[in-house]
Amino acid sequence: MQFRSPLFPYCLTFEVTKLINLKFIVLGNIKESFLRDAAAEYIKRLSAFAKVELCELKEARLPDNPSQSHIDAALEDEAARILAAIPPRSHVVALAVEGKQMSSEDFAAHIENVTQTASNICFIIGSSHGLSDKVKRAADYKLSLSKMTFPHQLFRVMLLESVYRAFNIIKGTKYHK
Amino acid sequence: MQFRSPLFPYCLTFEVTKLINLKFIVLGNIKESFLRDAAAEYIKRLSAFAKVELCELKEARLPDNPSQSHIDAALEDEAARILAAIPPRSHVVALAVEGKQMSSEDFAAHIENVTQTASNICFIIGSSHGLSDKVKRAADYKLSLSKMTFPHQLFRVMLLESVYRAFNIIKGTKYHK
Repeated sequence: MQFRSPLFPYCLTFEVTKLINLKFIVLGNIKESFLRDAAAEYIKRLSAFAKVELCELKEARLPDNPSQSHIDAALEDEAARILAAIPPRSHVVALAVEGKQMSSEDFAAHIENVTQTASNICFIIGSSHGLSDKVKRAADYKLSLSKMTFPHQLFRVMLLESVYRAFNIIKGTKYHK
Repeated sequence: MQFRSPLFPYCLTFEVTKLINLKFIVLGNIKESFLRDAAAEYIKRLSAFAKVELCELKEARLPDNPSQSHIDAALEDEAARILAAIPPRSHVVALAVEGKQMSSEDFAAHIENVTQTASNICFIIGSSHGLSDKVKRAADYKLSLSKMTFPHQLFRVMLLESVYRAFNIIKGTKYHK
């Protein structure tokens, strides 16, 4: 947002940059070094626009061939820890295959709109079994990046790049042509 | 496909694996080492299922602020080189944002279906300005991975992983839960 001083309308222009806090709550850590490096790089780049926090929670343990009740119990356990990690007064975006897909431009407009009223935005990526309905209901928005399934480590890189791109679109840089 | 010998119906079972050739025609090379490593890893894994060839073509040069006619000329130049690189009798899949999105399971079914009649499958990823209509018209299928825009280097990793996942689904491994 730009303000002009009424006293010096043409010579004093300054930009008020609102501090945005982005928290990424993710399940599991990244084993492959190349994907870890990719995530670290996008977090570094994103830090030019916002305070970024990556919160890696442990995936609930499951037996080799888990039953549906094993999976449900694991999702419940993960949900409790995810919900506890969401900062107060956050706009919560849960990544879910049934969520809404958006173009990069629409996603940027969504983020820009959110930042008018909230300074904390929290993105949640579930484990390989997804997210419990409890987390989905707690979210303000369900976002889908693709109909396809990706390993959650790669998916994390895709989300970080999408958010980085959104801020570039908002700021009008050359990154998104 | 499995055949049983009529002479030894219960003791001689062998699998006939049809050789599948996958060619990925892409524009530009990957500068970031972590994305290059990610692409190399998925190509290595995919080689368990098919003969894989990555064909990197040079992006056409453009001025800093290209006009639409500059971009059209670049896409035409790239199209000629892309079309020349497609092996004869290939099933051609062009990646395009307006293409069809599929779940990983449907994509695997599509690949399995294609391999009944074709042994060459060719995937084409355009440059940051996309693909010329000439290439899209030459394709048997237009596939979209997401409504969002991704850097084409990251997009290459996403496509390689999706194809690797499709073969795992076809072969019934544990990779895709």
